[in-house]
Amino acid sequence: MSELRFNMVTGEWVVIATERAARPDSYAKSGKRETPEASPCPFCPGCEKMTPPEVMAYADGLREPDSVGWHLRVVPNKYPAFTPEKGIETKEGMFPKMPARGFHEVIINSPDHWMSLGEMKPEEVERVLRAYKDRILYLRLFDFVKYIQIIVNYGREAGSSIEHAHSQLFAIPMIPSLVRRELTRSRDWKRKTGKCLFCELMREEEKGDRLLLTNQSFVSFLTFAPRYPFESWVLPRDHLSRFEEIEEGDLHLLADLLNRLLNAYFHAFLDPPYNLILHTSPCQRDTQDYYHWHLEILPRLNTWGGFEMASGMIITTALPEEGAEFLRGHL
Amino acid sequence: MSELRFNMVTGEWVVIATERAARPDSYAKSGKRETPEASPCPFCPGCEKMTPPEVMAYADGLREPDSVGWHLRVVPNKYPAFTPEKGIETKEGMFPKMPARGFHEVIINSPDHWMSLGEMKPEEVERVLRAYKDRILYLRLFDFVKYIQIIVNYGREAGSSIEHAHSQLFAIPMIPSLVRRELTRSRDWKRKTGKCLFCELMREEEKGDRLLLTNQSFVSFLTFAPRYPFESWVLPRDHLSRFEEIEEGDLHLLADLLNRLLNAYFHAFLDPPYNLILHTSPCQRDTQDYYHWHLEILPRLNTWGGFEMASGMIITTALPEEGAEFLRGHL
Repeated sequence: MSELRFNMVTGEWVVIATERAARPDSYAKSGKRETPEASPCPFCPGCEKMTPPEVMAYADGLREPDSVGWHLRVVPNKYPAFTPEKGIETKEGMFPKMPARGFHEVIINSPDHWMSLGEMKPEEVERVLRAYKDRILYLRLFDFVKYIQIIVNYGREAGSSIEHAHSQLFAIPMIPSLVRRELTRSRDWKRKTGKCLFCELMREEEKGDRLLLTNQSFVSFLTFAPRYPFESWVLPRDHLSRFEEIEEGDLHLLADLLNRLLNAYFHAFLDPPYNLILHTSPCQRDTQDYYHWHLEILPRLNTWGGFEMASGMIITTALPEEGAEFLRGHL
Repeated sequence: MSELRFNMVTGEWVVIATERAARPDSYAKSGKRETPEASPCPFCPGCEKMTPPEVMAYADGLREPDSVGWHLRVVPNKYPAFTPEKGIETKEGMFPKMPARGFHEVIINSPDHWMSLGEMKPEEVERVLRAYKDRILYLRLFDFVKYIQIIVNYGREAGSSIEHAHSQLFAIPMIPSLVRRELTRSRDWKRKTGKCLFCELMREEEKGDRLLLTNQSFVSFLTFAPRYPFESWVLPRDHLSRFEEIEEGDLHLLADLLNRLLNAYFHAFLDPPYNLILHTSPCQRDTQDYYHWHLEILPRLNTWGGFEMASGMIITTALPEEGAEFLRGHL
């Protein structure tokens, strides 16, 4: 019979519907390369004038802004969901609203149009992660920025509208609800047990059958109660609430592990669409005592239906323990 | 600039990203009829033996179970997410789990393979709604059933795997988190103001520019802070927490309104994929004082990306006030 599994971090029950279980290799689904793009790509070298002026770039030696010769470029989103101007608050009655104040940036991971994080060299992934760190260190200085959410949408089914592999950064004026939930649950756990929820979870997963890949500083595993089939998390062994305080050596080790992990997904599911999510501490709150930054990988291999939309409970058909064995075969 | 809107019922902020706003008619997307199905449809007349034995059916006059001649059929889901056997609870440490005990049924809305709720005659929609009521009245008698979630997945992008139009019922052993949230917020509102949150909301929406369609007993409008473009709700004017206690005359009026509303979506967005959701009171809790059943229509016209997955905040690009004007043009 199917089982209900409780996610200790999100506080949500999920349904593992074993009756409709399918073999892990039946999930393969390509996230890109369906059709070549007709028009020139605004993220490719030579098209720098098609984006808003860059706010940061990595290059070897001197280079004019918004010209070729970069390894990585950060630009404001051309159609931003958040913008820095102040605006006016108008919370009225049943319909409170306020300006979506913040920053919405695009991190162009590489000049290479097709280059995904799983196909890059580890040092290229390290460069992308360094950009995340640098942008957070800069943007957290704005007092109206309460949280910085960095994500990757890879493939159309993961919400991407531009094919050229990139990351997005949202610096927003509030702590979003899913992060608030993680904060509340981990703070309560700390109060109750005196321990970090994530450190505990990592210790348990490291001796279990959902483990994927580890190194000196990081541990990755498929989650016990996933939102999407083959959802995995990457946690630093060191208890650290802020990603941006990661040390240089660990940036290197994280890049290496993430690269190998995404490469395994690439081969196991034939280049699947996925979201990569960074969950880290809010900018202006001291959470070091109980929170623990981490990465989440959500392969978008199925579609949430009305039950998920209505209930908040996710039904998934892939057993994480089997999925881990399958993925390990591609590592 | 974009704006943040707060949903008083769900307690979530959403982002209306006007910078990337598109005209309402640019959202058109067909939910079905892409390819004819090769194999025989298990929900079509003559294929009754392909489903598990029916648990209810509506027909004129006498008829053998699992034979032709029905107007509507209810069968257990062949690959159920919930099943009634007892199972064993095993909440262990960081990984609590329990049996997914309950019922998972399919309501075959009509013998006609292609017949969606927006294309039916109103009396056929009434028959479907009556089946919802009858099944709830029966299944709520089981003491392990805490909530009954009825939904429609219409079209592949809305999570449907079988083309023949149908509804699904999940009788589950807990109150799901999104329903719990509505219950908590509406109970708090009642305590604070002495009024029903939904009655208030309906009163406000009825004089506003998001209104769609009303009749003697029901009000429908596009939501102020939607999760999907053109999300609409249908509320009964009478304060009633349980859908299954709807009166006969109101069943007729609801069917008529829902039919016309879905027909407007059908024409406005060229047969879009959507979820229809019924939110009603938990089975064993007296919520009449503060809760108010309602229908939610979620057109699946875009894809949630990593930001939504990471934050729980939805970014949508369609302004509900413009969307309502557009939809009213198709009513």
